[in-house]
Amino acid sequence: MAEPHGILIKGGKVVNEDVSVISDVYIENGKIADVGLNLHVPDGVRVIDASGKLVIPGGIDPHTHMELAFMGTRSVDDFHIGTQVKQEMEVIAKERGVNSFKMFMAYKGLYMLQDSELYAAFSQCKAIGAIAQVHAENGDLIAEGAKKMLSMGITGPEGHELCRPEEVEAEATQRAITIASAVNCPLYVVHVMSKSAAKVVGDARRNGHVVFGEPIAAGLGTDGTHYWHKDWAHAASFVMGPPLRPDPSTPGYLMDLLANDDLSVTGTDNCTFSVCQKALGKDDFTKIPNGVNGVEDRMSVIWEKGVHSGKMDENRFVAVTSSNAAKIFNFYPQKGRIAKNSDADVVIWDPKLTRKISAKTHHQAVDYNIFEGMECHGVAVITISRGKVVYEDGQLKTTPGSGRFIHREPFSEYVYKRIKQRDEVGQPTAVIRKPYDGKVISVSH
Amino acid sequence: MAEPHGILIKGGKVVNEDVSVISDVYIENGKIADVGLNLHVPDGVRVIDASGKLVIPGGIDPHTHMELAFMGTRSVDDFHIGTQVKQEMEVIAKERGVNSFKMFMAYKGLYMLQDSELYAAFSQCKAIGAIAQVHAENGDLIAEGAKKMLSMGITGPEGHELCRPEEVEAEATQRAITIASAVNCPLYVVHVMSKSAAKVVGDARRNGHVVFGEPIAAGLGTDGTHYWHKDWAHAASFVMGPPLRPDPSTPGYLMDLLANDDLSVTGTDNCTFSVCQKALGKDDFTKIPNGVNGVEDRMSVIWEKGVHSGKMDENRFVAVTSSNAAKIFNFYPQKGRIAKNSDADVVIWDPKLTRKISAKTHHQAVDYNIFEGMECHGVAVITISRGKVVYEDGQLKTTPGSGRFIHREPFSEYVYKRIKQRDEVGQPTAVIRKPYDGKVISVSH
Amino acid sequence: MAEPHGILIKGGKVVNEDVSVISDVYIENGKIADVGLNLHVPDGVRVIDASGKLVIPGGIDPHTHMELAFMGTRSVDDFHIGTQVKQEMEVIAKERGVNSFKMFMAYKGLYMLQDSELYAAFSQCKAIGAIAQVHAENGDLIAEGAKKMLSMGITGPEGHELCRPEEVEAEATQRAITIASAVNCPLYVVHVMSKSAAKVVGDARRNGHVVFGEPIAAGLGTDGTHYWHKDWAHAASFVMGPPLRPDPSTPGYLMDLLANDDLSVTGTDNCTFSVCQKALGKDDFTKIPNGVNGVEDRMSVIWEKGVHSGKMDENRFVAVTSSNAAKIFNFYPQKGRIAKNSDADVVIWDPKLTRKISAKTHHQAVDYNIFEGMECHGVAVITISRGKVVYEDGQLKTTPGSGRFIHREPFSEYVYKRIKQRDEVGQPTAVIRKPYDGKVISVSH
Amino acid sequence: MAEPHGILIKGGKVVNEDVSVISDVYIENGKIADVGLNLHVPDGVRVIDASGKLVIPGGIDPHTHMELAFMGTRSVDDFHIGTQVKQEMEVIAKERGVNSFKMFMAYKGLYMLQDSELYAAFSQCKAIGAIAQVHAENGDLIAEGAKKMLSMGITGPEGHELCRPEEVEAEATQRAITIASAVNCPLYVVHVMSKSAAKVVGDARRNGHVVFGEPIAAGLGTDGTHYWHKDWAHAASFVMGPPLRPDPSTPGYLMDLLANDDLSVTGTDNCTFSVCQKALGKDDFTKIPNGVNGVEDRMSVIWEKGVHSGKMDENRFVAVTSSNAAKIFNFYPQKGRIAKNSDADVVIWDPKLTRKISAKTHHQAVDYNIFEGMECHGVAVITISRGKVVYEDGQLKTTPGSGRFIHREPFSEYVYKRIKQRDEVGQPTAVIRKPYDGKVISVSH
Repeated sequence: MAEPHGILIKGGKVVNEDVSVISDVYIENGKIADVGLNLHVPDGVRVIDASGKLVIPGGIDPHTHMELAFMGTRSVDDFHIGTQVKQEMEVIAKERGVNSFKMFMAYKGLYMLQDSELYAAFSQCKAIGAIAQVHAENGDLIAEGAKKMLSMGITGPEGHELCRPEEVEAEATQRAITIASAVNCPLYVVHVMSKSAAKVVGDARRNGHVVFGEPIAAGLGTDGTHYWHKDWAHAASFVMGPPLRPDPSTPGYLMDLLANDDLSVTGTDNCTFSVCQKALGKDDFTKIPNGVNGVEDRMSVIWEKGVHSGKMDENRFVAVTSSNAAKIFNFYPQKGRIAKNSDADVVIWDPKLTRKISAKTHHQAVDYNIFEGMECHGVAVITISRGKVVYEDGQLKTTPGSGRFIHREPFSEYVYKRIKQRDEVGQPTAVIRKPYDGKVISVSH
Repeated sequence: MAEPHGILIKGGKVVNEDVSVISDVYIENGKIADVGLNLHVPDGVRVIDASGKLVIPGGIDPHTHMELAFMGTRSVDDFHIGTQVKQEMEVIAKERGVNSFKMFMAYKGLYMLQDSELYAAFSQCKAIGAIAQVHAENGDLIAEGAKKMLSMGITGPEGHELCRPEEVEAEATQRAITIASAVNCPLYVVHVMSKSAAKVVGDARRNGHVVFGEPIAAGLGTDGTHYWHKDWAHAASFVMGPPLRPDPSTPGYLMDLLANDDLSVTGTDNCTFSVCQKALGKDDFTKIPNGVNGVEDRMSVIWEKGVHSGKMDENRFVAVTSSNAAKIFNFYPQKGRIAKNSDADVVIWDPKLTRKISAKTHHQAVDYNIFEGMECHGVAVITISRGKVVYEDGQLKTTPGSGRFIHREPFSEYVYKRIKQRDEVGQPTAVIRKPYDGKVISVSH
Repeated sequence: MAEPHGILIKGGKVVNEDVSVISDVYIENGKIADVGLNLHVPDGVRVIDASGKLVIPGGIDPHTHMELAFMGTRSVDDFHIGTQVKQEMEVIAKERGVNSFKMFMAYKGLYMLQDSELYAAFSQCKAIGAIAQVHAENGDLIAEGAKKMLSMGITGPEGHELCRPEEVEAEATQRAITIASAVNCPLYVVHVMSKSAAKVVGDARRNGHVVFGEPIAAGLGTDGTHYWHKDWAHAASFVMGPPLRPDPSTPGYLMDLLANDDLSVTGTDNCTFSVCQKALGKDDFTKIPNGVNGVEDRMSVIWEKGVHSGKMDENRFVAVTSSNAAKIFNFYPQKGRIAKNSDADVVIWDPKLTRKISAKTHHQAVDYNIFEGMECHGVAVITISRGKVVYEDGQLKTTPGSGRFIHREPFSEYVYKRIKQRDEVGQPTAVIRKPYDGKVISVSH
Repeated sequence: MAEPHGILIKGGKVVNEDVSVISDVYIENGKIADVGLNLHVPDGVRVIDASGKLVIPGGIDPHTHMELAFMGTRSVDDFHIGTQVKQEMEVIAKERGVNSFKMFMAYKGLYMLQDSELYAAFSQCKAIGAIAQVHAENGDLIAEGAKKMLSMGITGPEGHELCRPEEVEAEATQRAITIASAVNCPLYVVHVMSKSAAKVVGDARRNGHVVFGEPIAAGLGTDGTHYWHKDWAHAASFVMGPPLRPDPSTPGYLMDLLANDDLSVTGTDNCTFSVCQKALGKDDFTKIPNGVNGVEDRMSVIWEKGVHSGKMDENRFVAVTSSNAAKIFNFYPQKGRIAKNSDADVVIWDPKLTRKISAKTHHQAVDYNIFEGMECHGVAVITISRGKVVYEDGQLKTTPGSGRFIHREPFSEYVYKRIKQRDEVGQPTAVIRKPYDGKVISVSH
């Protein structure tokens, strides 16, 4: 007789984005079968005692759970918008279930799109119901800035930030929003790294723009003063684009805006390189591979800086680490909520435990950690993915290849409902006039 | 054999604040018994066909559903904060289930509190877990302004606005937030009527303050240009405090901020007087009874100006008309959500129907309507209150006395979770120093 | 015996940007020879009684006084920044005394520069000490917007504004400032037409950017609701780029910012076309010649809306109509001030007279006036240009060809002092580190 | 034979607020007799070679030059506005030449005025043409905050800032502006110490309010992190009200706003106590005498942080240290300008010299200096007061009692011109209506 595969999580506090309730959760066949007290469950199912703990929806993390999904929203190399490319986008969206596309305003000569190309790309996203994502930095200014820094003999990691100060990010963010607004296309700004760019996003939302800003763990947990660190390897390990900002009040500000729904979701943009890889740029900061760690510590960093600090509560934590991403990318409440019939992606979270982040103990291969030494309250004790325990007692229990791609439908309601309504009722109309019948000057060419 | 009392709402689109799903809803014994497709229900229950319609949580409206509840948060006359009063507040909160208290910064010589009194009142609210509410206008300036207007011969309704321009509201709003912040007490600003006051609330939220702003139907649906109307009775019918604003872009701005969660909930402050009552102030605007209609048309006005216009979607509509109030006043998800075990307060809403608001057809006794002539999309076709149909086919079916007071617990988690955490981790500490042992000047008195 | 050419202006109130003083002004040989009371002047000079009137520096108006001067800062057609062009700019600046260059972000396919071209142009302006001027609108968005409007059947003048809403102006303004800031080049934004663009300029100044914003008479005196006028010819007469804005609070807001030095100077961008010329675009708004009148009424409109309204005083009026332009374009106090040795460009202004602006009475050839019917306080009664009365008793007394070009030196101190200092003390420096000597990954190409 | 008393300053760069010009300055009988090149001066006058140096108007410093003058604007103890007090204000203004009065919103139980008292005081200032000055902090919140800090065991200087965070200053600033606006009375906010209060002032100016903000040397040159210094005496020496702010970006922000005319003038609020005087509060921060040094170093600190940094130019330096104060307090151009007939208050300033500020070398009696160790560019080499050299070669040459009070006229044009115009054209008017002749409800009392 087969062992029952169900799992009963008993006595925990189930935390959804709207409310927390002490409740049991019963899991079967990869789904949440029921939520409530005194559930009827088969004999012999595994029972996890979650009393004193929180039961939260699995964090939706671009890289771990759905690489292709929303980071697969991966830059389309050499993106010249023509009929050819437009059709490809449509095919990818319809047949492959990808509902977001990422465009670059930086990386001149490589990925960077001109405004007219962004307009075309956003238009096509709109037409097929996808979310347009942008890496918002002014690539022209970065290219000029980098040249200038190198010419001044600034070759170290500090040059990386100096050549692309936050104005460069804020400007591009404003521009992307203006273009998206001209198209009435929803916009998702990846890795919002600076106070000024975050304010641009927040102000645009206040003015009614359908725009979502994504700060990342790195930007919420540390800052760009490290680029001035005397140890090159230390400084280089923080290099990413857009860079972390030297203004030390940046992380707190980003968290305030995340708490307040000026910013919507948290990513990691996790992309780690070892020190010897970073060292490719030891004499020229423009050659340092861009990327920092984050995926493993995202939840802890956000809990510590967001919830433990009192800036947000546990419900908002669930919203920004899970539910909002699920809504935007159109698989809510299949994911992003602990509810009957949802996927059984569940984390048992102990808000009282603490741990210290360190490269010595982390599970990633990389030999440093940008959050080194950070004391975090809040620790995941058990992680369940589609009904299976994949992390427990400090051990990963994943089987390679067990990830599964989630086919996402276009025209996410969370994103497109207002867009459609505005298209319907908000179109300008012509003034009805009697034709001008006066004299017209004649122009000879 | 007793007729089954259950109601099955079939085929509607169930709209909660987070998501909309086509689903059936089964109601029994005043509660929602189940939500889903293919529900097993007893034979003979009433079936309501809701296909093509929305099924939304009953609007939480201060006056209709729970007069004592959160407007009972009614001004305590002559509110001098002493031990006596503090104890009363505690008793009311603990024994009578009232978890909010409204304080006035206006109405000098009547209700107006000084800053030190507000500090004491907010402190006591904090101590007993209540929400402090304020009517935010600078009473001193209004008193002086009214004298000035009358002395200039301005006796008509336009004087009502001229003596209390929006700066007077914005100033008091800022002050109330500053005082609440000093106490670390959550604050709820009733009837936010102006762009500048709304911006104060939104900015405070962005800075992390636990503050909620409530625009009202009148402010979202019409404006203060009516005070300059040539017909005295027309002008007088719009008199309320704080006044509607003459800047015609105000309603759209308030709606934008409501859509964006800078403002949180919508009330009506419904308080209607007939023309002959208003006429008490025919020669002196300070004698015009303050109050406008709104309760009956609140949902329609917000749907029209908010949802139909494309500023918010149907989910946000539910949040601002129902869920958020339920969370703030601590009876969510008992109310404010269509979910198993919630109270069966349900509205069947037809978003395609339209109606024209008019005093000729409304159900209120009052002889004018400030929204007169407004064409509204979105009409409630059936309203169910605690499992009973109370409105159908254009007819009210309520029985006087069927309202029921809801006992509310203090320390609403939605409001107090961050407050508590900040008290725990955010307290300042003294610098440890060795004592100063130098000379001290001697002072002779 | 030759008649003495001196002019003594007696008893007027001499208004400079810093202070007003009752004083006489004696003019000789085209210069102000002295200012004070009881001046010794030759017998027989003409004496003008200015008691009860203001004596103000001649308005510095791009078109009348120095066409080539600062509007000669006229667009360089087909501006592709290469070595060739850079040298030309240097020659024009050094040899021809032009110290400003205007670049276009609009007019795609004609004048529009890309960001990298702007960067190069600004860099060259900086190198030669010129002021970079921009027409700030996003040309790509305008081009797309125009196509869209026409495709929707919107062919009238309202399409002109609809295809280039104020976001399009504000975005480009922000971008131009960001690029100028990257170069540390002073920037002058011509014809600031919208609240949002003006706010961008004001905020940038507050953040320390060396940027000057120029609203124009049209934008300060009327608004874009006229594009919706039922009479095509009326609507068309207001067409200019960037357009006037339909938000009727725009002129007052621009004036507030001008009064407060968020905006610095006033121009007219005067460029008038007759109705039959405008009619070239009778079936397609993109073909309507862009331009409105303004030069003749600039002073009156600014006095009426600025000074008479109480938004600014007479000294600020002088600053924004005269002194600031003189400072920016580097001929202050030769012009822009009533002082000994300054050029005798003087206006006798009667602040109590009123006149009604009308196409019937104006001196321009064009057959309409966008300020038609505006009642203005403040009338110039006598205008003196380089010592000669050129306007008196309502009659122009100019001789064609009497205008004279003013050679302007580069590196205006008013504009460049801070720029230079920042270059000197504000440069970033490299972190001094010991070289990285760890492993470097080898990359095979 | 008497020695000629004239002084000729040769070859310097004369810096006024509007422009700098190489020019000679001839001084005679305490006045500037002439400004220009090749001046005719009597033989035997003292000639000062100022080549390579700046010749600037003497700094207008509340304490040194005119103690009674604008700090005599000294708090009126126990200021209950009644008829008696109003008359006193009028007498002081008319007969004693004082045209500003300072009101306190802080110091509860001592000087603090209620809003209605502020309204009365501002009204009286308006009536007599004086400038209302406010110390803007919410005294109620400070009183409560101080109690709270002491109850938490926080008795050191850090408690001084913790009990009156910047919100308390910003709130009161906003309130004062709102009240002044209701009266249409010009307002001068003394010692603006925080970013948020400065922003309030700047925003109000942008909205057209006639308000002037005065940052002080301490706030521009150092910050409130010192309150957390481990050495009690060090920390205590920075205690003043409002306190310096712990946000280290505060001084730079205040300087940006001062450079941009969001803030207008600089004071010192100089009021020094020795360490043994400060020690009165060694066990209770509320007993530490409030006051810091500043008068001696004001010009150097502002030059260093403002001009040397490139935030403002030398002309703006003159405006904020001299001309603007002279305009506001109504003795411009008698003071505040180097011009013929102005008072001969002149400083010869060497912008290339540097000095290090230190208590060891300063001329004040106090035994510490809050700017200790600051390296400053820009040194006054000679100071001339009313035609006499009072400082030269590092030596003060003043004679006690040589200060002279300046009688100031009310209704300063710089301050009141707009106020008057608004009173004239901006009054609201009543709507003309036919009387309401309908029914009126009868009310029985």
